[in-house]
Parts: sequence; C-alpha cells; structure tokens
Amino acid sequence: MSSIVLFAAKQLVRRALPSADLDEDTPDMSTPDDHLDDTNPVTEEIFSSWALFILLSLLCAALWSSYFLQQRRIKAIHETVLSIFYGMIVGLIIRISPGHYIQDAVKFNSGYFFNILLPPIILNSGYELHQANFFRNLGSILTFAIPGTFLSALVLGTILYIWTSLGLDGISLEFVDALAVGATLSATDPVTILSIFNAYKVDPKLYTIIFGESLLNDAISIVMFETCQKFHGHPVHFSSFFEGIGLFLMSFTISTIIGILIGIFVALILKHSHIRRYPQIETCLVLLFAYESYFFSNGAHMSGIVSLLFCGITLKHYAYFNMSRRTQIATKYIFQLLAQLSENFIFIYLGLSLFTEVELVFKPLLIIITFISICIARWSAVFPLSRFLNFFYKARFEKFNTRNALNGNISAQSLPDEISHSYQMMIFWAGLRGAVGVALAMGIQGEAKWTLLATVLVVVVLTVILFGGTTASMLEILGIKIGCIDESNDSDDDFDIEAPRLPLSNTPSALGNRRYNNPSRVPKTPYKDDLRGISNPSLAGQYPNSNSNSANSLIDNNLANDDEDEDEFVTSDVDDLLTGSNNIPLSSNGDNNFGGVLGAFLSAEEHAKWFTRFDEQVLKPVLLDTLPNGSSNGNNGSGSNNRRNHRDGDGQP
Amino acid sequence: MSSIVLFAAKQLVRRALPSADLDEDTPDMSTPDDHLDDTNPVTEEIFSSWALFILLSLLCAALWSSYFLQQRRIKAIHETVLSIFYGMIVGLIIRISPGHYIQDAVKFNSGYFFNILLPPIILNSGYELHQANFFRNLGSILTFAIPGTFLSALVLGTILYIWTSLGLDGISLEFVDALAVGATLSATDPVTILSIFNAYKVDPKLYTIIFGESLLNDAISIVMFETCQKFHGHPVHFSSFFEGIGLFLMSFTISTIIGILIGIFVALILKHSHIRRYPQIETCLVLLFAYESYFFSNGAHMSGIVSLLFCGITLKHYAYFNMSRRTQIATKYIFQLLAQLSENFIFIYLGLSLFTEVELVFKPLLIIITFISICIARWSAVFPLSRFLNFFYKARFEKFNTRNALNGNISAQSLPDEISHSYQMMIFWAGLRGAVGVALAMGIQGEAKWTLLATVLVVVVLTVILFGGTTASMLEILGIKIGCIDESNDSDDDFDIEAPRLPLSNTPSALGNRRYNNPSRVPKTPYKDDLRGISNPSLAGQYPNSNSNSANSLIDNNLANDDEDEDEFVTSDVDDLLTGSNNIPLSSNGDNNFGGVLGAFLSAEEHAKWFTRFDEQVLKPVLLDTLPNGSSNGNNGSGSNNRRNHRDGDGQP
Repeated sequence: MSSIVLFAAKQLVRRALPSADLDEDTPDMSTPDDHLDDTNPVTEEIFSSWALFILLSLLCAALWSSYFLQQRRIKAIHETVLSIFYGMIVGLIIRISPGHYIQDAVKFNSGYFFNILLPPIILNSGYELHQANFFRNLGSILTFAIPGTFLSALVLGTILYIWTSLGLDGISLEFVDALAVGATLSATDPVTILSIFNAYKVDPKLYTIIFGESLLNDAISIVMFETCQKFHGHPVHFSSFFEGIGLFLMSFTISTIIGILIGIFVALILKHSHIRRYPQIETCLVLLFAYESYFFSNGAHMSGIVSLLFCGITLKHYAYFNMSRRTQIATKYIFQLLAQLSENFIFIYLGLSLFTEVELVFKPLLIIITFISICIARWSAVFPLSRFLNFFYKARFEKFNTRNALNGNISAQSLPDEISHSYQMMIFWAGLRGAVGVALAMGIQGEAKWTLLATVLVVVVLTVILFGGTTASMLEILGIKIGCIDESNDSDDDFDIEAPRLPLSNTPSALGNRRYNNPSRVPKTPYKDDLRGISNPSLAGQYPNSNSNSANSLIDNNLANDDEDEDEFVTSDVDDLLTGSNNIPLSSNGDNNFGGVLGAFLSAEEHAKWFTRFDEQVLKPVLLDTLPNGSSNGNNGSGSNNRRNHRDGDGQP
Repeated sequence: MSSIVLFAAKQLVRRALPSADLDEDTPDMSTPDDHLDDTNPVTEEIFSSWALFILLSLLCAALWSSYFLQQRRIKAIHETVLSIFYGMIVGLIIRISPGHYIQDAVKFNSGYFFNILLPPIILNSGYELHQANFFRNLGSILTFAIPGTFLSALVLGTILYIWTSLGLDGISLEFVDALAVGATLSATDPVTILSIFNAYKVDPKLYTIIFGESLLNDAISIVMFETCQKFHGHPVHFSSFFEGIGLFLMSFTISTIIGILIGIFVALILKHSHIRRYPQIETCLVLLFAYESYFFSNGAHMSGIVSLLFCGITLKHYAYFNMSRRTQIATKYIFQLLAQLSENFIFIYLGLSLFTEVELVFKPLLIIITFISICIARWSAVFPLSRFLNFFYKARFEKFNTRNALNGNISAQSLPDEISHSYQMMIFWAGLRGAVGVALAMGIQGEAKWTLLATVLVVVVLTVILFGGTTASMLEILGIKIGCIDESNDSDDDFDIEAPRLPLSNTPSALGNRRYNNPSRVPKTPYKDDLRGISNPSLAGQYPNSNSNSANSLIDNNLANDDEDEDEFVTSDVDDLLTGSNNIPLSSNGDNNFGGVLGAFLSAEEHAKWFTRFDEQVLKPVLLDTLPNGSSNGNNGSGSNNRRNHRDGDGQP
C-alpha cells in the first residue's frame, strides 16, 4: 500500500511541477503540456503508462492483500472490500491532483468492462462449473434468475418512481426510466459472495443456486434494461410487458444455442484435425472461439453472457477431451488467471470511479431510499419464490408418492424444505450488486443521468461493503453448513488438472477408473485427480437396460448419490431421491398441473436422464475422439482409439 | 476464410439495411442510427462487438492458416503475409461499407499497440530466451542494434531529406523530421523472421543475433524518434548528436537496471513469502510485476521494451526457481499464448490499417524511393559493421595467441569470420520492418504527417511481404545450415516444461541431474525435461578451485561446449574456444586497444566468467529458495532445503 502512495505522490510531484523532471539527466522530451500535445502519441503513451502503472499497482496490492488475508485466516474483511477501498484512495489522490490525463485514462468505461473484463469471468465460470450440481439445481436457479430478477426490478422501479414523483430530490423520472434503474440494480454479482463461499467451502447446493442465479440474472438485467431504454420517451402499453418477456425468452434460448453450437464446433474441429500436434495454436483457437461466441451473440442483439457461459460448459464437456494434454492445462490456467485479474480489477475500477467521474451528482436521500429499496426488492423476490419452490417440490413429491409405492413412509409434510429458511436468508443476503449494474447505468439517458449513475455507483459499493463484509458472520448466524470438501475446490493447490465428470449422471466419483484408455494420451503420472474416475462401469450397461425403476438400479443410484453427495445436507439426500435419480418416472414431462414456463423449468431436471442417455449414446461418440472407459460405447470407443493411435502415430513415435 | 467473408457480408446487409433485422422476431432495440446515439453504450457495445468479432475471426483465420501451412509443410508463403492479406481484404470490405462505427473501432491505435500488443511479445522473448546464446553473442547483437540502427536511420533520413528537397512530391521536410522517419523505419521486426527461423531450426547463432538485434533496435528507434520529435521546429546543433547518443546510453542502462531490479524483487518476494501455496495469486503477481516494469519504465521516459526484456530474463533466471510448479507451467503457457495472439494480431492490424485509415495520402514515387532507401540504409549498416566485427575478433584472437601458447596452430587468417558473408546477407535480408515503426509514425508531426504515415505503412507491409516471403528461399540460396535441433525448440510439442539452464555457464545439458533436491517439490512424474539436468556436478567443485586455465578445466569445458552446442556450426566451436570458456584470460577487461563503447560491449562476453561465479556464489544463494543440486553451495543448499521443508510442512502434509 505504501508503495502505491509513494508512487502516486511521486507522480503528483511530477505533474504539479512539470519542470521538475525526476530523472534529472533526461532532457524533458515530453513535458506534459496537457493542452498542446493532445494528439501526440508519445505524450499520450507516457500518461497512459502511468495510468496503467497505477492500475496494475492497485491490482498487485489487492492480490497481495488477498494472499495476506488468506494466509492469516482473517475472515472479518474481504479482499473485494479492500479492492474498492484501494481504488477509492487512489481515485481521491488522482482527483485532487492537477491535470486531467490520468483521470481520463482511469475512468470507468463500459466498453472496456463488457469487452475485456466481463468475458473472462463468465468463460471461467462455465469452464469450472460443477456441471452435475448446476443441472441438478437448474429449476431453482432459473426460478430465482428469471422471475426473481423481473420481480426485483419491478418492485425497485415502482418504489423509485413513487419516490421521485414526490419531487423531494428535484428529479423526475418516467416509469420506464425508473424500471431501467431497477433493472441495473437487479443484476447481482457473483464474485465476492462466491469467493467467500469458496473460502468457507459452503454447502454445494446453496453455492450452486447463488452462483447460477447471479450469472444468469446479469443477462436478464441487460435485456430488461435494453428493453426499457427502447421505450424511453415513447408511450408504454400493457402489451409491452409480455413483449418483454417473450423477447427475453427468445434471447435466452438463441444465446444458449449459439454458445452450445460454437462449443460443439470446436469439439468437432479438434476431433477431425491434427491441430493437437500444434498445442500453441490449439490453445489460442479454443480461447478465440469462446470469445467469438460472446461477441457474435452481443453483436446479434443476443446475450453474450449466456452464450459464453454455455460455450464454456460445452467446451469442458466435449472439446476438453479432444484437446492435447498441454492445451487442457493451458486453457484451465489461462481462463483462471484472466478471471482472477478481471474480478479484482472490476472492484478497483468501481472504487476509482467514485472519485474520477467528475460529472456525478450525489443525492444522499435518493441513495438511502434506493439502498432500502433494493433490500425490499430482493426480499420480495427471494422469499415468495422460495415458498413457491418448496410448495412445488412438495406437491410433486406427493403426486409421486401416490403413483409409486416407494418412499411411502415419508409424508410430504415431514419432508424438509427444498429451500430452507436459512438458505432463503442467505440467498437474500447474497444479493450484492456489482459492476454489471454500473456498466449498464452508464447507458441511462435523460437529464437525471448523472444523478442516477452516482446513485447506482454508491449503492453498488455499499452493498459490496455491507453485505460482502458480513457474509462470513451471516453464515455462522444462520448455521449454514461450512467446510464441505468439494472435489472441485481442493484441486487448485498445486500442479493438477481436475478430472471432468459427466453432468447429470449419478457418477460415483470415488471409483478409480482412469479416463485414459489410449496409451498415447495417458499422462505418465498418477495425478491425484486422475484417480477420480469420471464414469462408472456399472452405469455403462445400465442405461440401455434399465428403463423402469428396477430395485437394482435404484440401489445403484442411491449408492452413487451417497457417494457423491456425502458432503451435502441430509436434506440433499432426500432431495436426490426426488430429483436426481431414476426413481422419478421419466414420463413426468407434460403431466404436471403447474404447467407453463415455470413448470417446464422445474421439470428440466427430470429430462436429465434423457439427455444423459442421448449424450452417452449419440453425442459423445460423435464429438469425442477418445471415449472414456466403460461408457456404453466401449466397443466403438476402442475403434476410435485405434484410429487415434494410428493418426497420432507419426506425431508421437 | 469463407466464413469471415460470409460474416462481413451478413454484417454489411445488416448495416446497409438497418430495418432488415436478421433475427426477425427481435424488435430492433438498438438500430444503428449512427449519428443520434453516439453516447449510448448499448449501441456502442453492439458495434464494438462486431468489430471485435471481425478481428477475432481474422485471428482465427490466421492461426488456422498457420496450422494448415505447417501441416502441409508449405514454406513458400508465410502466415504473417497471409495475416496482412486477410487484414487488407477485410479492411477493404469495411472501407467500402457504409457507416463509420466499425471503421473507427478497428483503426490502428498506437496506445493499444504499445500498451497491449507489444508487451506480451517482449516479455515472452525474455522469458523464452536462450540465455547462454544471447550473452555469448552480446557483442555482435549490441553492435548491430546500437550503431547499426543509428547508421540506418541516418542514411535513410539523409536520402529522404535530399529527395524531398527536390520537391517532386510537393512535400518538404526538415532534416530532423526526415531523421524521425528514418528512425521509425529502422526498427526491425522479429516476429516473421523468427517464426521462419523457428520452423527451419536455423543455426542458433544467426538466430540469436537477429533476435537480439530486432528486440533491442526497437528501443533505439523509439528513443531516436522521441529525440527528433523534441527538435521538431527548433534549430539543431551539432552537439545534439552527442546529446542523443548520451541520452540513449543512459536510457538503455537505467531501463536495464529497472528490469533487473523488478525481476530480483519478484524472486525475493517469492522466496520470503508463502505465496506459492496460493499459485493462482502467485501467477497473477508474476505477470503483473513484469508489466509493471514496462509501464514504470515507459512512464519514467525510459525504454519499457528494454526493461521488460531484462525483467523477463531475470524472472526466468531467478524467480522461476522459487515459483510453485503450477506457476512455472502457467506463466510459461500464458506468456506464450499472449505473445502468439499479439504477434498475429499486429499483422492483421497492419493490413486493416491500409484501408481503414481514411486520411492517408499515398505518394507512389515517395514510397518507391523510401523502399529503395531502406535497403540502402540496411546495407550500409550491416556490411560495414560485420566487417568491423570480423576484424575485431581476428585482432583479438591474434593478441590472445601471442599471450597464450594454446591454439597456436590456428592462425588468425585461417580462422573463419565471426559473421560470415552468408550470415551478413541473411542479417540484411532479415531487416523486415514491423508494427513498432507504424506505431511510431502515428506520432509524426507537421503537415506531411499523413503522407509519411502512408509511406511508412506501405513500406512496412512491402518489406514483410517481399523479404518475409523470400526468407525461406534465401536460406537455401545462401546455404545457411538449417535443421539444427535446438533444445528449446523441441519442447513445445506436448505437455512439457523446459528445464531452465544456467546462463553463461558451460553446462552439459545431457547429464541427468534432477534439479529438485527437496522431496516436497519433486513432481511425481518423470517429465522428459526434468531428465535434462540443469547443473553439472563436475562444475560444482570447479569454480572455487579453477581460477587458472588448468588443462583439466579446459577439457571439461570443451566437453561441455561440445555437448551443448552440438547443433551449431563448426565455427561456433572455435568461437566458444575464444569467448565462452575459461581459456580467455580474465584480465582482458580494459586492455584492448579498440577502447570506447564498442570495445566495452565486445568484451562483455569476457566478463561472463566473473558474472557466472558471482551468480553462483552470491546471487543464487541469496535469491533462490532451493539451490540446484551440485551447485557450489551444496551445503548451504541443503540448509535451505531443510528450512523449506519446514516451511512447507503445514501446507503439504
């Protein structure tokens, strides 16, 4: 920290006294005559160098603090809060120093945010995603993400509209503009909360729900915001409401398809070319194609976030197995590095912006009202929807019970809630706002623009400091289970590659099946995570045969679940009985009474089995070069192995 | 390629017919009303998305072409030439399409170039540098880089000044401005030539000289250009000449020191902290500190390129050994990836700029004259300096002969040239100009700005296409040895880490010493490159004892050299006798008659021994956490190992 202050001071001296060149032997080649040489790249370069130097120093300080906090096991204060503070301090120094060059250079730029900082975070989220957990909780995630964000924006927009109508702050907003602000402040941020959750190794189910929600609701906020902007200055009809919903659903679907298609395209390219012999080029291409999905989707008015997320998931699920070993490692490390830098940078950027954005108009009363409103809005989104989810799951369980003799000794009333009260409270508390909101707020139009931007900025920083700073204590107060040893978390300790696993399948991860059945691809080492197999031979023969709920497969699956979810709550095991296993009838699609969009989402989990089988029997043989051991296509697999051996023969003597 | 054209076409349709939304169900939320919504980030984001999408597609196409060319072993055409062509084609399409958004977004921006594209290339060069080769040829490199670039700029500037004085093109230049243009066109580009050299595995000596020269002359060009710009519009005195030289030497020295200090700082941080337990943070910090050296140096009016280069070298020489295994791998892969992307991107950017820079004024006659002039300028730099180097080495050899009975049977006249004629021709041919020149030319002031920028741009592209396209043939015509199996080149095939080696020391790389003498850091696998040891136990006891040229140590060293340089020319072995081994008297500093700067540079190699001993006995024990096996401080080493074991004990049970 002190080095930064020293630097800022030195730089201040340099700028305050342009003649006092600190390197006295150097003739002053590019004196910062701020107004004369605006077009001289050399002068510009000097100043952008200082700006970048300051930003990188802040980043170093933030990372070093993060190391220090982890090393000393200090949980009371979190690194993102420190990042914001560092940013604020340096922003203040830059603000009170004369000149405008550096101030201009470090301003929050929504273009940089959306094009440079955001994609790595999303890509890494998709790539590192625990696919089984994500898809198992897809119903809850989509419920909180889609109707939840919508509700939150609506409540917040309404409160803001009513408040500004009172005229106490001297600003007036149209309803669509208030709704736009509501949308910007409904995008929750995954970074802080998840890094805390990671540190505490919080229950994976809660982790997955909050993670999935915060990833997806960015996309919803963006689409909502754009829709509201479109109506800025135009009359709004009631039909616009449904138009917006339809628009969103289409955008979400198409974006998902774009991401998946590009992921599959990469898998096919890697399978059908020899590019793995040139791993440097291979790594670049994987990264580039992932980014292509983001920019293509954004350019086509779709949601780049959703595309990139699903592109990352698809890449990990298929393309990963076709990559050279070097590319597997390189992509993993590179995505992690870029994501980590972006995450830290975003918070520094937010802190800086509080002081370097000169036009901001701060209205304390409006800020307080807005802060209270977002709490109300989040409350009214989380609690009713949780109740709905609990009700829905219980109703489904009862229906299942009446049709099936199994589990008849558990009544629906005695069943624990799908989302328990402490989970609800934690989901509420996890509603930190982040940089997506600020980036969107840059696009607010109208005369109140600077007031609203200032409000959004301060509220975002407040939520991070208040909610983020108290998350650790909240976990204890709510008695949420921590210290769950999640397999995907213990593996970043040293030189290691996480063995990918099959999504949606009940794979016992403790069985020691190696995924490499081709000697030329077997790493020469017993990596600890290679010992975690990814597929269970007992499942291999099971899919084609066990269409019905034979007692045998039920036992198999329960065993598998117990094995995998040993770290979860007891409720989760009951849960898995309900949703994750074969003992849910496959025919449940369409015959539930809740109907509609939500019903479709909630039964998504039940389609999992269909997908798993399709994946094993059709997609993997088509997309993967080398099938994992013991998959249902073992015989085909050995065929493709032979081919692979033949193809790689000249490359690896 | 076709996909890009398809895309550009689709995008053209979208922009030409704003109402024809290609996703017909989407209400047109952000119609590209180019002049109304200039400040709307959402609209801007759409267009910057398209611009980035186009650039990334070009990058994919270039990388794919690179793969294709390598796969089919096509040597007649090079990927950088293709990159430029792709850039030109898409630039033309963007130029003729209506609207200005994308055109603005893909313009060559010298800030992006210096702050984003250039640093990764330099950093990776330093990190991947074959340190022994580089320092062994330091004399030749510095001779070509410093006086060579200076001569080249002077000749080119003079010719341009005379030509424009004739007034045929209707532009007039002051001499300093002509010299500035000369400086921009004297920065040679390493990328194309070195990728060809890599593909052909050209003789490492020639490779190292061209590599070192093109890296360092960028720095000289930048300083020269800035000095000339300073005199723009001012009277020039003869003393300015010496002022410029003094300025450069100071800048070079200070920049080197900055780079080395930051590298050492990182090594010490890694040694004295527990940060290797958090390899993600560690990797980020290494990358950030390297960048800090670049931006700090640039900000302080020094040469960021030189700082970053030496920071990279220092990081690899010291800090690398203190990193966790994961960080070693991650930094290597990440630096490579970033460099590869930047290199390809720069050429695409150059191709695009030919059409997207709308203000350019092309004067064909001036372009032709300039192109001829750069050939003359390069010629007049390479050939006289080569002759000087040959003369100098022979003279030194004779002096050495008279003082030492050894090698008396080789007369100076029968000795092969230090830089043979075919080498001289190849160094001349390797004088491609690159993006540094264009980036500098963006800063040209005065009324002739756009004419000169256009000239520089076209000349740069011409040199890449003409010289770059014919390098392969030239190698054959000149009979330069190719197919040298360099150890540092065969190691990017698959999952591998190059074992670092001691610079300047005569380390036999074939001996199988593991560098890990601490069980907790030994990777569990027999990596092929771990089998290449980095230090020779026979050298361990040798340094403290063998101050004089004992027959024993001479044999040892020759053996070692033969082992390491088996891939080099026969001349290199003679060379090593002269420069790389113990049989050069250590007292040769100061007593050569050539005196002055050049003499100091040329005798730099002879200081190598001093440095190696200092490095082994002082620097490495201070900076490294775990000393390599068998180093002269083996007993201290085991002490630090014990400490290390103790420190890491709680981290790794």
